[in-house]
Amino acid sequence: MISEKALRELKKIYGKRLKTDAVHKIAYSYDATRIEYEPDAVVFPINETEIIKTVKLANTYKFPIIPRGSGTGFSGGAIPIKGGIVISFSRMSRLEILKEEMLAIVEPGVITAELQRRAEKIGLFYPPDPASLKNSTIGGNIAENAGGPRCLKYGVTKNYVLGLDVVLPTGEKISVGKGLQKNVAGYDLISLFVGCEGTLGIVTKAYLKLIPKPEIARSIRADFTSVRDASEAATDILSSGILPAALEFMDRKSIEAASTYTGEKVSAGASLIIQIDGSEETVKHEIERVKKVLQRHNLKGIKISMNDEQEEEVWQLRRSISPAIATLKPIKVNEDVVVPRSKIPDAVDFVYAIAEKFKIEVIVFGHMGDGNIHVNFMIEENERERAEQAVGELFKWVVAHGGAISGEHGIGITKSEFINLQLKKEEIVIMRKIKSLLDPNNIMNPGKIFQE
Amino acid sequence: MISEKALRELKKIYGKRLKTDAVHKIAYSYDATRIEYEPDAVVFPINETEIIKTVKLANTYKFPIIPRGSGTGFSGGAIPIKGGIVISFSRMSRLEILKEEMLAIVEPGVITAELQRRAEKIGLFYPPDPASLKNSTIGGNIAENAGGPRCLKYGVTKNYVLGLDVVLPTGEKISVGKGLQKNVAGYDLISLFVGCEGTLGIVTKAYLKLIPKPEIARSIRADFTSVRDASEAATDILSSGILPAALEFMDRKSIEAASTYTGEKVSAGASLIIQIDGSEETVKHEIERVKKVLQRHNLKGIKISMNDEQEEEVWQLRRSISPAIATLKPIKVNEDVVVPRSKIPDAVDFVYAIAEKFKIEVIVFGHMGDGNIHVNFMIEENERERAEQAVGELFKWVVAHGGAISGEHGIGITKSEFINLQLKKEEIVIMRKIKSLLDPNNIMNPGKIFQE
Repeated sequence: MISEKALRELKKIYGKRLKTDAVHKIAYSYDATRIEYEPDAVVFPINETEIIKTVKLANTYKFPIIPRGSGTGFSGGAIPIKGGIVISFSRMSRLEILKEEMLAIVEPGVITAELQRRAEKIGLFYPPDPASLKNSTIGGNIAENAGGPRCLKYGVTKNYVLGLDVVLPTGEKISVGKGLQKNVAGYDLISLFVGCEGTLGIVTKAYLKLIPKPEIARSIRADFTSVRDASEAATDILSSGILPAALEFMDRKSIEAASTYTGEKVSAGASLIIQIDGSEETVKHEIERVKKVLQRHNLKGIKISMNDEQEEEVWQLRRSISPAIATLKPIKVNEDVVVPRSKIPDAVDFVYAIAEKFKIEVIVFGHMGDGNIHVNFMIEENERERAEQAVGELFKWVVAHGGAISGEHGIGITKSEFINLQLKKEEIVIMRKIKSLLDPNNIMNPGKIFQE
Repeated sequence: MISEKALRELKKIYGKRLKTDAVHKIAYSYDATRIEYEPDAVVFPINETEIIKTVKLANTYKFPIIPRGSGTGFSGGAIPIKGGIVISFSRMSRLEILKEEMLAIVEPGVITAELQRRAEKIGLFYPPDPASLKNSTIGGNIAENAGGPRCLKYGVTKNYVLGLDVVLPTGEKISVGKGLQKNVAGYDLISLFVGCEGTLGIVTKAYLKLIPKPEIARSIRADFTSVRDASEAATDILSSGILPAALEFMDRKSIEAASTYTGEKVSAGASLIIQIDGSEETVKHEIERVKKVLQRHNLKGIKISMNDEQEEEVWQLRRSISPAIATLKPIKVNEDVVVPRSKIPDAVDFVYAIAEKFKIEVIVFGHMGDGNIHVNFMIEENERERAEQAVGELFKWVVAHGGAISGEHGIGITKSEFINLQLKKEEIVIMRKIKSLLDPNNIMNPGKIFQE
């Protein structure tokens, strides 16, 4: 519980932008996991100076600070599990694009889709595309090292961060990377802050690399009888020297749910969505090549986009999975494990087997190209324990097969009990030492990633 | 000076693979900077276990360890300035490619070109292409976060490292990244080790991302009257939505030297080499687009490759710069500063002005696309002091204009006196704290990057 004195000091900084009323406390108590812990207060800084002051106060009065974007995270990263002050970045959303430098300079509150829209307007492109991009912020994307379908070809958020202004947990301001395309002067601290889930510092500005916008994107939805056929086709595409912008995968139940939801009648054991982008000539040529490869793999059906409108149609099923499955059961336990690409069929078989064992419904889809599959256990409230056991077995299998328990959602609080499964003792020791070094008073988003 | 006792212990590990003779000491005393400091001994480990034992001995007997690839570095990173044991990786060069996973698993002693050759043989591609790639090792590339012309489109070494096995300076073994395309479980320590110049640990195995090999690559050499024209043309190409594989630049003196060396008669104030890669259709189409853009910029001459043989010819001048200028003067003081792309013409003007001021010859070329220019002060032995003053002024200008003092060569010992110019006190403090945390006895490549 934060002291009255600390609150008075915060009031001096923020005035009316300090909120301690019940409505704000509730509104900032949860994220997409729907787990709830109320903060003591919410603040809305408008500049870095206010953030530095807040961090210094947090060290003096020992209260937690939880930076928060739009709260779309799936691992509880933005939930104030130990109370404290939520820093909302909704008032820090300046965005500048330097066209000549192909660089965006953004504050953490900028919405991902807004950055993409602004970049594309002038022929540039910001590839990372988490599913929540219409709501998620760049600050949140950086905190979680967000991915998305296009990350197969273009890489994840960290690959676009050329610099960060960071307020350290002890209040010093540093700039890492300097926004340059190349920079090897000193240690590269960028990736330490990208994906740290707000535990090592507060990003106040990011320098993001933009690339030329591909002329067009066209996609194929290919339907198969089995996951194995789909997986073999995916590997064959990549082995043929084609790097699609996206190579997505849906299992039978995803297809059923999305088919019911959209009214588009499709029945298959698995589908792939293969998106090719680039110049018109390349795309036309590569779509033909992909078609040829697909025909070697027991193809059941195929749908190809020839223009932007059809592009939406080909993606319709894939994009409808989330809203479609949301109606199936009250609770979705959503995991985003990663396995080596060639192990996807085995992983999916294993998921079906544990769903059978624990008698719970499961829906699998995701990013086949980079081995990142989304496993959704769909449950009633009274099935939670069985779902947790199923998740435990899934994580064990994944780690035993050279995979990772999270590819893009982060560890947060929902997976922290499994971090010891993923990382060796020596690895956790070194990470915790870095945390203690940077944040001796443990004020930055405490209780996340590691078990306390 | 290492103790006799420590040497006896090393002898137990390495037997005949411990070398203390004069020939070995001299051979491992220098790198491409030609600065010389002899080690106390050189060892040739064949596995990780030997490395762990060596690191533990180093902590017990407090001797420095200097990991070394091929010694092609330009900043003295592999030079044993405080004596100690050089670890040569020439006996650790196993290389395995998992085609289905598009992954290379390599030991640090693998030669960069060998990895590329093996990958390309099966339709895959490892893009980073430092000029020394025929000799340089992957271990060295990782230590310095090596770049090269193709890094404009494809990114630098760190963008291809999906995992590292590292022996920490205290002897523990950790694995970071796990070789997966995506992994957000815990802090991302990959980039901390990539570019750490061997000061934070010893990489014993790297998991490198491969991509499909582009079908073909074709290039244009475009000659201009002035650097400004060339720079404007380069920006115009990128603004037109074309991302070349490489966008290289040569100034008048580079062209003169290479022209004399090769016998190819070219006279221009500046040249660009623009390489486009991809499918045949794309390349054909984009080469036409680049031609159109170039014609808007006072083009003096143009040379285009239509096949692989001509491709070599178009690159001939650019590739000949290094051997060509090596004959001009006994000493080359070679810096690889980075500036925001739009500031390249001003940077080159400034370089010419300081060369004039200090009456020394200068040759400028480099990677225009990512703002990374190579400034070569060509001097006699008695001009060294003036060259150092010129370098000092160059670095000050670069930092004042938002740039970096090194884009791909690293800081090592040649630029460590300027690290305070590049980084703020708070930034250096945090980097040094990380160094002390990981390497409390300062045994790993001491005296590099930071001033002691």
